[in-house]
Amino acid sequence: MSVLPAAFLDALSARFTDRFSTAVAVREQHGHGESHHTGVIPDGVVYAESTEEVSFVVGLCAAHDIPVIAYGAGTSLEGHLIALRGGISLDLSRMNRVTRVSPSDLDCTVQAGVTREALNSHLRDQGLFFPIDPGANASIGGMAATRASGTNAVRYGTMRENVLALTVVLPTGQVIHTGGRARKSSAGYDLTRLFVGSEGTLGIITEVTLRLYGIPESISVALCSFDDVGQAVEAATAIVQLGVPVARMELMDRGLISAVNRYSGLDLTVDDKLAFEFHGSPGSVEEHVRLVGEVVTDAGGRNFEWATSPEDRNRLWKARHNAFYAVVSQRPGAKGWSSDVCVPVSELGNCILHAREILKGCQVPAAILGHVGDGNFHVVFAVDPGNAEELAEVARLNKKMVHKAISVGGTCTGEHGVGIGKMAYLREEHGDAVDLMALLKHAVDPKGILNPGKIVGQA
Amino acid sequence: MSVLPAAFLDALSARFTDRFSTAVAVREQHGHGESHHTGVIPDGVVYAESTEEVSFVVGLCAAHDIPVIAYGAGTSLEGHLIALRGGISLDLSRMNRVTRVSPSDLDCTVQAGVTREALNSHLRDQGLFFPIDPGANASIGGMAATRASGTNAVRYGTMRENVLALTVVLPTGQVIHTGGRARKSSAGYDLTRLFVGSEGTLGIITEVTLRLYGIPESISVALCSFDDVGQAVEAATAIVQLGVPVARMELMDRGLISAVNRYSGLDLTVDDKLAFEFHGSPGSVEEHVRLVGEVVTDAGGRNFEWATSPEDRNRLWKARHNAFYAVVSQRPGAKGWSSDVCVPVSELGNCILHAREILKGCQVPAAILGHVGDGNFHVVFAVDPGNAEELAEVARLNKKMVHKAISVGGTCTGEHGVGIGKMAYLREEHGDAVDLMALLKHAVDPKGILNPGKIVGQA
Ligand SMILES: Cc1cc2nc3c(=O)[nH]c(=O)nc-3n(C[C@H](O)[C@H](O)[C@H](O)COP(=O)(O)OP(=O)(O)OC[C@H]3O[C@@H](n4cnc5c(N)ncnc54)[C@H](O)[C@@H]3O)c2cc1C
Ligand SMILES: Cc1cc2nc3c(=O)[nH]c(=O)nc-3n(C[C@H](O)[C@H](O)[C@H](O)COP(=O)(O)OP(=O)(O)OC[C@H]3O[C@@H](n4cnc5c(N)ncnc54)[C@H](O)[C@@H]3O)c2cc1C
Repeated sequence: MSVLPAAFLDALSARFTDRFSTAVAVREQHGHGESHHTGVIPDGVVYAESTEEVSFVVGLCAAHDIPVIAYGAGTSLEGHLIALRGGISLDLSRMNRVTRVSPSDLDCTVQAGVTREALNSHLRDQGLFFPIDPGANASIGGMAATRASGTNAVRYGTMRENVLALTVVLPTGQVIHTGGRARKSSAGYDLTRLFVGSEGTLGIITEVTLRLYGIPESISVALCSFDDVGQAVEAATAIVQLGVPVARMELMDRGLISAVNRYSGLDLTVDDKLAFEFHGSPGSVEEHVRLVGEVVTDAGGRNFEWATSPEDRNRLWKARHNAFYAVVSQRPGAKGWSSDVCVPVSELGNCILHAREILKGCQVPAAILGHVGDGNFHVVFAVDPGNAEELAEVARLNKKMVHKAISVGGTCTGEHGVGIGKMAYLREEHGDAVDLMALLKHAVDPKGILNPGKIVGQA
Repeated sequence: MSVLPAAFLDALSARFTDRFSTAVAVREQHGHGESHHTGVIPDGVVYAESTEEVSFVVGLCAAHDIPVIAYGAGTSLEGHLIALRGGISLDLSRMNRVTRVSPSDLDCTVQAGVTREALNSHLRDQGLFFPIDPGANASIGGMAATRASGTNAVRYGTMRENVLALTVVLPTGQVIHTGGRARKSSAGYDLTRLFVGSEGTLGIITEVTLRLYGIPESISVALCSFDDVGQAVEAATAIVQLGVPVARMELMDRGLISAVNRYSGLDLTVDDKLAFEFHGSPGSVEEHVRLVGEVVTDAGGRNFEWATSPEDRNRLWKARHNAFYAVVSQRPGAKGWSSDVCVPVSELGNCILHAREILKGCQVPAAILGHVGDGNFHVVFAVDPGNAEELAEVARLNKKMVHKAISVGGTCTGEHGVGIGKMAYLREEHGDAVDLMALLKHAVDPKGILNPGKIVGQA
């Protein structure tokens, strides 16, 4: 039973026919991401196919004061998509065209609904790739909206560094273009970076211009083993401090390795591991491998296992990408809850040690993994969503990790975003700067129709 | 004779005594940058020594509705510092402390008035450096405020990529802290990037946290010669497209080379040149040099001249950094006027050809130089500031270059900023996104006291 006004419903039905749905099943699918947060379903779902259609929907929502929540691929983890005040979920997955690829400028423009896997399939023949890789097959628009990163960020940066320009529909329905194709510009306020990470609360991104990279001549992957997570982190920290440009450097604790073995049918030795990827010319890859090998050995690591064939590499990274699901699948009916702190690299060992300490008494299955080259790590818990006590315990542990991270100059969320899950920590992290965020939100979206109740919480 | 109200004058004098001046000579020095724009002097100058003092001055200006313009090192080129509506120039040059350096995290925090040369002197002993290098000895706060870059941006990015966190005094006098020390974060709106490039119109930056880099093990510099600028650009473009990570790649046309020879007492062969710098391990530098050498030869380049000793390298880059002054000094009493377009690299050859075409009839001495790895180039004119016709002609040529750049997806300013010089082009480049910039300006600074009349022009 929808609460949407009749005139509004009629306008959407007339324009979108079967691309507008108020069916409960469709709405339910759009009211949550992939984590433990309890969903709240929107009142209706529109499947947009163009910027102009997005502008129409947002303009109509503005006229009727109805919330509108952009929906990319629904893989977010902090309750970003929950329709706290109902309204319309604006599904962009059909905006899936790669509009332009310019190999000579190493850039491209895509519609917001293109997924990172689809983009990379499209690019492969041209010898190009887009490195930002949150594991999940997220949409480029959603990745921009959450300022996503993932395994490759240590080398290639995050969405912050790799988005050149955006087409954005403002809360009035007006369409603007931010940024441009030049590699750098000092021409006014950095609107692109304002929308990157704004989680659908300031505007709806309909097109994204991205930096691309040539597929490296040589790619090499290695796994190595440690007796202890502390040793692995020590090695990772030293590698960052040496400035070795590893393309990926992922920590997986032994708990995760056994979950991954089971879930992905692998038989990795069960110990604490670092997984590396190296990109470059054969000469430079060799040099980096040698440097990393020395550091790993010094830190007590061993058993370099090489994955040189593309198949082996893909199997390994696929298993790593499924780590979240591997942990969750250990427990029937469980949901995933992932912490996401990021700290200065020199504090990483300290913070992971702290996390292990506080996890000691915890009965909820959990594993530690991390994009350790950036100082970012996750504890993934497999929680029973019906068990209030358990949820409270994980919330308490998560809070402790966040306090610790913020106390050493870090952040409550390195890459997943605020959604509703991290709102409580923003003031602890940013102090009165949160008031400026709220002021910007109010200035850009005075009616508060765009994804209301998220980030700064304004209605 | 100052127009400032007595109560305001008294409050400043009481607090700052001889660090507040209304002397004409002092005010004159603060009413302009280093370019051709005609200055307008402020009504008074305050030398602040702490964030708290900046907050006091801004709060007082807010209470009295008096404009306040941050002053870093005064090297900006687009009339940024001109006191269009009088008011206070807030000189931050005495906020010159490096507050913290963390070699293990490769970051530091500095007060806004620290100059890039002072910072690098401070860092050298620890084997670290800060790469952003606008040639002039600008302040870190000014560089953040203009989103500066320079010769090293092709490898290390611009201020956008290298500022991690800021302390900012808002137009109310309130102090906030943006960003943090984690390498990445998705915790809310990217306020840091909003202030980077805002040219003192949204807040006054008092402290800056920067990424640092280890001084490379191996540094190598080479100059090579071409018969034609077109060939040089062709080589540069190919090098970018190959993805060779050169640390610097600078174009200097023959006009510039003769000016530089004269100004800096060098005897470089007078032809069109590319200057390269390579950073890395000895092995990787060797590999990059070889690759670049092949491309240069293929494009018709020759005469690799190596500068391996630190003295030779420094002499070369010093001469390059003084290029602006070298051009200007060719003509007694002249002022420099530098264009600053930046375009997708594939369009660079085309745009430089266009620039050379339109320069053909021009009587004003001019030279072409560029950070060609980023697609950014300058035509530096030595204009007679008293000759209205000449100024109009250069304005006309500049306008043509800007039109051309924007028409191929580029920007009117790659690194110098908007000031008053590029305001006329913002709408051409950004369309209605300019209205959003104005809306943000109005939301953050409703009284319009911070550097009024710049960027979006609001009073
Ligand atoms: C197994 C797993 C692993 C993950 N690993 C990582 C990781 O390593 N790194 C990482 O960064 N994230 C990771 N995530 C989180 C998730 O993939 C990212 O947050 C991703 O960026 C979300 O993209 P999406 O398209 O699914 O967005 P959605 O979930 O659909 O939306 C996310 C938010 O963005 C908004 N939004 C979506 N599209 C737009 C648009 N076009 N315009 C404006 N707002 C929009 C939505 O309103 C919502 O607030 C992981 C998730 C899973 C399930
Ligand atoms: C010879 C020469 C070569 C140059 N080459 C380059 C180059 O290669 N690349 C490049 O990017 N630039 C270049 N420039 C331009 C100039 O050096 C840069 O714009 C520089 O960033 C200005 O810094 P500054 O400290 O001198 O700022 P100022 O000139 O003092 O101020 C510039 C603007 O920033 C504001 N501002 C200053 N400090 C603050 C603060 N703390 N908080 C808020 N606002 C502030 C001012 O109000 C003003 O609007 C060159 C200039 C010269 C003279």
